Amino acid sequence: MSDFPPTLERLLHELGKLPGVGPRSALRVAFHLLKQPVEASHSLASAVVEARNRLKPCRDCFNLTEGEKCRICLTPGRENGVVLVVEDASDVAVFERTREFHGLYHVLGGTLSPLEGRGPGDITLDALVTRVKRNPAIKEVVVATDPTVEGDSTALYIQQLLKGEKVSVTRLARGLPSGGDVDYTDEITLLKAYENRKEF
Amino acid sequence: MSDFPPTLERLLHELGKLPGVGPRSALRVAFHLLKQPVEASHSLASAVVEARNRLKPCRDCFNLTEGEKCRICLTPGRENGVVLVVEDASDVAVFERTREFHGLYHVLGGTLSPLEGRGPGDITLDALVTRVKRNPAIKEVVVATDPTVEGDSTALYIQQLLKGEKVSVTRLARGLPSGGDVDYTDEITLLKAYENRKEF
Repeated sequence: MSDFPPTLERLLHELGKLPGVGPRSALRVAFHLLKQPVEASHSLASAVVEARNRLKPCRDCFNLTEGEKCRICLTPGRENGVVLVVEDASDVAVFERTREFHGLYHVLGGTLSPLEGRGPGDITLDALVTRVKRNPAIKEVVVATDPTVEGDSTALYIQQLLKGEKVSVTRLARGLPSGGDVDYTDEITLLKAYENRKEF
Repeated sequence: MSDFPPTLERLLHELGKLPGVGPRSALRVAFHLLKQPVEASHSLASAVVEARNRLKPCRDCFNLTEGEKCRICLTPGRENGVVLVVEDASDVAVFERTREFHGLYHVLGGTLSPLEGRGPGDITLDALVTRVKRNPAIKEVVVATDPTVEGDSTALYIQQLLKGEKVSVTRLARGLPSGGDVDYTDEITLLKAYENRKEF
């Protein structure tokens, strides 16, 4: 790839670090930017830097915000009795899109992962416990980590942590995804769906 | 999508303008950047701006360069008798990767496209003619525009333009792509391959 001038090489290198951007798409994006007016590049660059500089974790729930507290924590009328624990700030947006959850969130900033060297101190577990202790209004902590080995062990760890507190700790249901197909469902999902079957 | 703080919205909007980046990948890229150290964002932003500011067309062939002339035009020993005409600077890299073409290039900066309002004055056709007129060393102009309607008509236009000059104007061969399958080849390609058949 040494056919390109150094600044282009560098741009390709930087673009190639982004998730989902391979060498071909990096090339496509780079040439797109080079064809656009200078302002387009400046606008993209400043959006990247500003977002990174100005967004920080909400003081209470660690969701992304530009101020002290995030929009959700600041919204009057959210049910403060339920806290939904999610892995990342991106998960908050997903739940908000359902328009049916009206409680508060707690963003862990990842899962426990011995393999990747992330222990309890690397995610916002202490803050979750403190939050539960300080807010007697919180009646339920719903753990919504991913249904993976790491997500599950993080959920279990949270359940252990909160054992002494006066909150019920629940976990999102496991079962068939809506619009799914029994034929193509893996055995673990099918088994969970069977175990958790409900009466009509 | 108004669930996000304004700076994040703006970043998603800017990322979404890039080719091949939909709303989902914009979200993925944005959250990736927000998790990385601040330096990663600065590094990406400056790469974008520097590339856009410093890269410009080569004085002779319109390939991208940081100086007056591009690396290829500056390489001693390239065959200056053959000029390969390509649509974009990205095509130069593709030909360079074959390591078999040792001539020079001419980057058009697009094709003629009445539909998109691009006429002869919008691409580097005048410069090509001037270049051919001024360099009696040039013996052959190989047109390597895309095998599309617009690429073909641009090729034809170039052939007309250079009719009076002492150069032969050729076009890349049409035929079966290597590794292709006759079964799945469209009729036009098959017909071209048949018409251009060669003796062993």
